[in-house]
Amino acid sequence: MIIDLNGALTEAGEARLDPFDRGFTLGDAIFESLRVEGSVPEFASEHLTRLAEASRVTGIPLPFTPEDAAGRMARLIQVNDLAEGALRLTVSRGPAARGVAAPAPADCRPTVVISVHPLPPTRNDPVAAVIAEGTRRNDRSPLCRIKTAPYLDNILALEEARRRGAQDAVLLNTRDRVVSAAYANLFCVIGGALLTPPLEDGPLPGITRQRVMTQLGGAERSLSADDLKAAEEVFFSNSFGLRPVTQLDDVALPGAEGAWARKASEIAG
Amino acid sequence: MIIDLNGALTEAGEARLDPFDRGFTLGDAIFESLRVEGSVPEFASEHLTRLAEASRVTGIPLPFTPEDAAGRMARLIQVNDLAEGALRLTVSRGPAARGVAAPAPADCRPTVVISVHPLPPTRNDPVAAVIAEGTRRNDRSPLCRIKTAPYLDNILALEEARRRGAQDAVLLNTRDRVVSAAYANLFCVIGGALLTPPLEDGPLPGITRQRVMTQLGGAERSLSADDLKAAEEVFFSNSFGLRPVTQLDDVALPGAEGAWARKASEIAG
Repeated sequence: MIIDLNGALTEAGEARLDPFDRGFTLGDAIFESLRVEGSVPEFASEHLTRLAEASRVTGIPLPFTPEDAAGRMARLIQVNDLAEGALRLTVSRGPAARGVAAPAPADCRPTVVISVHPLPPTRNDPVAAVIAEGTRRNDRSPLCRIKTAPYLDNILALEEARRRGAQDAVLLNTRDRVVSAAYANLFCVIGGALLTPPLEDGPLPGITRQRVMTQLGGAERSLSADDLKAAEEVFFSNSFGLRPVTQLDDVALPGAEGAWARKASEIAG
Repeated sequence: MIIDLNGALTEAGEARLDPFDRGFTLGDAIFESLRVEGSVPEFASEHLTRLAEASRVTGIPLPFTPEDAAGRMARLIQVNDLAEGALRLTVSRGPAARGVAAPAPADCRPTVVISVHPLPPTRNDPVAAVIAEGTRRNDRSPLCRIKTAPYLDNILALEEARRRGAQDAVLLNTRDRVVSAAYANLFCVIGGALLTPPLEDGPLPGITRQRVMTQLGGAERSLSADDLKAAEEVFFSNSFGLRPVTQLDDVALPGAEGAWARKASEIAG
């Protein structure tokens, strides 16, 4: 597989990063993951807009225009002869001397990695989920509303799910409100209404989340864990699919049998 | 300068990481920074104990014993002929396929980078600091008590300090309690008593923090921003030195003239 490293097409096995890249030393990086269908990256404009917002919040400069990025994604899809799959675009602040303080934007040499991957095989599989007890999403940080490389809290939550016999985890925020799954937005159905946590509770502003909301007429509502456990349906969405929840802690849920999950999977799945 | 990459001594400019290393893609890495004096890494045992705790919390396997690590640090200091400086030891979960879920420990090939650097030149300089308004430290995550690569909230806080004409930032937690500076523990003096935030408020359990506490008879106390602004002295400590605070938002402080800062800098400076 060939990747695009700072504009150069390179065999993945030969591409190498600087060990002093701040993406590696400090998690100082932003990214987007796109679904590729029919050799076209879906909703590329929305993803690049979200990346630009992440650049604004973090100060990590984007060393390309949206048009450049679209062209490079198209070229990479073509050289890899990819019909369907996942495409990841990562931008780190680049190599720098030791220390937390970021170089001035003019002194940054951002690292850009664009890579293609298979679609995640379990992307539409029903899941048992737990409500993570071990960690919380930091809704008091602006980072919760952009897509940054640091996923360690999500990794901890997934490890907890695995230990507890489940496949995914629901994260709460620091005020005990439901946020999202470990790498997907969360929807539920309560009293026949489709609901998802509002952005102020800390979910990523997902592109699929927005599409499902608009097309199915969902509403934002702040939810407790007890609200979620009393829901008629729960499902998780991201750019790659829709996973209906069959079990949440000790509560059984309809999973793929749910009427709303079926409708939403026509949009997201 | 020569670094140790997975046990191999390599010129830093030639050492290269896999672009699919989870340290780069997901901030999935832990680390320690040690001060080197007289060609010896100071408090190496304490640092390696804290790294082992970070390994336990994150599940990132350490592919060495403490004795191996100590031997490799000594070797690297020797080949670089380093009398004094900083040594960083980073362990990431290593290269992996796309996706958030961590490979099982037996399938991980962790990446270990050991590198040496100059001592930070401003390590004992007085600073003006702001209380960061833009982000919070996530005291509801176990990651706040271990040293992980993701420092983006700290980077945001430092950028805010720079915008506001200061050199460092005090982070509050999600419950409005004082935690730390951007890359150092925080001490203050109130009513003649030396105080530092308790671990439950979210500071890193700093090795210098513990030494200053023990040798000067400090106490842990949960502090608000107003408490801090009313303090007689404020200073920041890490493995590299002690920075007395001359100004906190609009409040003038004695900086290096403070009696406690002088005493503490004999321990940390």
